[in-house]
Amino acid sequence: MAANIPLLLMGCGGVGRQLLHNIVSCRNLHSKQGLRLRVVGVCDSKCILVKPDVLLSELNDDFLLQLCKIKSSGSSLQEIANSGECQVFSGQETEKKVMDVARILGKSSGLVVVDCSASSETISLLSQVVNLYCCVVIANKKPLTSSLEYYDKLVSRTRRIRYESTVGAGLPVISTINRIISSGDPIFRIMGSLSGTLGYVMSQVEGGRPFSQVVNNAKSLGYTEPDPRDDLSGTDVARKALILARLLGHRINMDNIKVESLYPVEMGPDVMLLEEFLVNGLPSLDKDIQKRIDSAASNGNVLRYVCLIEESRCEVGVQEVSKDSALGRLKGSDNVLEIYSRCYSEQPLVIQGAGAGNDTTAAGVLSDILDLQDLFRH
Amino acid sequence: MAANIPLLLMGCGGVGRQLLHNIVSCRNLHSKQGLRLRVVGVCDSKCILVKPDVLLSELNDDFLLQLCKIKSSGSSLQEIANSGECQVFSGQETEKKVMDVARILGKSSGLVVVDCSASSETISLLSQVVNLYCCVVIANKKPLTSSLEYYDKLVSRTRRIRYESTVGAGLPVISTINRIISSGDPIFRIMGSLSGTLGYVMSQVEGGRPFSQVVNNAKSLGYTEPDPRDDLSGTDVARKALILARLLGHRINMDNIKVESLYPVEMGPDVMLLEEFLVNGLPSLDKDIQKRIDSAASNGNVLRYVCLIEESRCEVGVQEVSKDSALGRLKGSDNVLEIYSRCYSEQPLVIQGAGAGNDTTAAGVLSDILDLQDLFRH
Repeated sequence: MAANIPLLLMGCGGVGRQLLHNIVSCRNLHSKQGLRLRVVGVCDSKCILVKPDVLLSELNDDFLLQLCKIKSSGSSLQEIANSGECQVFSGQETEKKVMDVARILGKSSGLVVVDCSASSETISLLSQVVNLYCCVVIANKKPLTSSLEYYDKLVSRTRRIRYESTVGAGLPVISTINRIISSGDPIFRIMGSLSGTLGYVMSQVEGGRPFSQVVNNAKSLGYTEPDPRDDLSGTDVARKALILARLLGHRINMDNIKVESLYPVEMGPDVMLLEEFLVNGLPSLDKDIQKRIDSAASNGNVLRYVCLIEESRCEVGVQEVSKDSALGRLKGSDNVLEIYSRCYSEQPLVIQGAGAGNDTTAAGVLSDILDLQDLFRH
Repeated sequence: MAANIPLLLMGCGGVGRQLLHNIVSCRNLHSKQGLRLRVVGVCDSKCILVKPDVLLSELNDDFLLQLCKIKSSGSSLQEIANSGECQVFSGQETEKKVMDVARILGKSSGLVVVDCSASSETISLLSQVVNLYCCVVIANKKPLTSSLEYYDKLVSRTRRIRYESTVGAGLPVISTINRIISSGDPIFRIMGSLSGTLGYVMSQVEGGRPFSQVVNNAKSLGYTEPDPRDDLSGTDVARKALILARLLGHRINMDNIKVESLYPVEMGPDVMLLEEFLVNGLPSLDKDIQKRIDSAASNGNVLRYVCLIEESRCEVGVQEVSKDSALGRLKGSDNVLEIYSRCYSEQPLVIQGAGAGNDTTAAGVLSDILDLQDLFRH
């Protein structure tokens, strides 16, 4: 019983391109498992390349690899549009064409729409294709952290949506939580370090190095966003916390999450230039953070930047944790998640490993796609 | 699109009974997800209780709970057979009846045959029901560690078999390895502490307590089998190692695994009485183990009883590991598994938590059953 899985990829950044590479390089492996992943269309923010007859044909592997090459050189998808391999639609027609493909394939062969973009423009599109019997695999945090209305639409068909890579990249976070919940084992607490950057920063300052020096060093090593305040604000961790909290049944939005920023409002990007922040802003924070570290150490604890989700609580910020816990022992940029449930009540279930990077994220997306395969065996 | 999943349970020990309890207590949860688990038959080593019309009817919840009560009081299934709720077949007819049910349901509605026994008598039965289009969910290590011929038969329909609870109970070990492999990320090393008992023993002796004292203490706490040599021999860990090695594609049998026993042959159960082993045998081993611990400590390492699987290697025994690794930091009876792959090459993906107990094992079995649900939506 072979499974033929048509795919439409949205987003050709690092993750999307790595996914296409992986699909091509796994052809033999998947064929042994009776699987065929058929890429019928690829879009970026400007246009879509799509086969004229999506029911029968697919973009061939050479074309997909050439497409990756062109995109990674910084060019637009339109540059390879004239090869005759596919049709091109751009601007407002892009979305319309995605819907056309979803309408044609959704109810017949089925279709997986894969969101590897970082855009908020895919939100409404994804909630529509779900209604057309399509599956969705999402690496983009925005569709899952928008309004509850959109969230409910997206997850209404639980068996047709996967979004493992939104939290901890390829780490089995969402799938494990789903396994635990469905087995009737209630989860009462999740605590995790879900930012490689903040994990690195907090474990480094613990060794006695000044906060400002650690952040500047992390920036020069490429561990932070170009403006480190994007990491230090905690917004990205808050998005991940919201995804996990909603999975546990919390009916909340981004506004409901208490987020602690590692810099004060008066040093925000709207108030202070980056250079000024790095040279004068950051060092002025060193003393306070050192004080908190010392206070934690006097309790035998260490500080970690964590998300904490409990029954009526969803918070993101600095917490004291035991230095003997999985969180407390964390070094480097690994992510770690502690899950407490009836079965894992005294000692948590712990998942730990690299939680970022195009390679691990794309691997998580591909696993998600394959996890849907039983819906495609006819 | 509702899923109706008929189940036949083999094995009414602690795990099987916990599973029945969980199925009954999850009725509301599953009904919200459009799921109905329909228990059509239950067997132990002596007989099978089964509904006369497995296509339409099921053993009701009150009956299942009563059955659990009777079994846990030490009585046989036959004691409740006369309630009129079901038919009873015993002796050689048991297996024949299982095959009948598999033949009737396999190709029509589908059937999940669940093996929660610890018996080797289910091996041939399971490989036959797989051929009748049934799914199998296995918590019993024996069917997966028998000959390669049986193994190949069992896993020939990859989408219809799950056996998460054979390694690490409810911990997401098998599912995570499957996710990694299917995403084209090659795994080159697995190292884990897969015995709660041996994990406890090795972390306790590290603190300076004599090996004999730790083992005797573990026995009196109920952490070991009645005869601790069943744990100390490493055979149970070797079974788990074989399951993982075969999952990675190794074509090996139990004989091919190098297993280090923590006691010498001349202290084995066939040679020495248990009492003699506990009083005189064990203490004579203290000195040697202390020497190995000291030697490891002088390298900054600790000793762990691990399974190690690499490309052409599958070993079970005592290894020196860095005390800063997840394995080295292990305390208590948690299981821990480190997976190294292309994506997780320097720092492994780590899964840690309670790896034994009826509750966690039954939760793993129930998750496995639900993971098959897409095959039951018609």
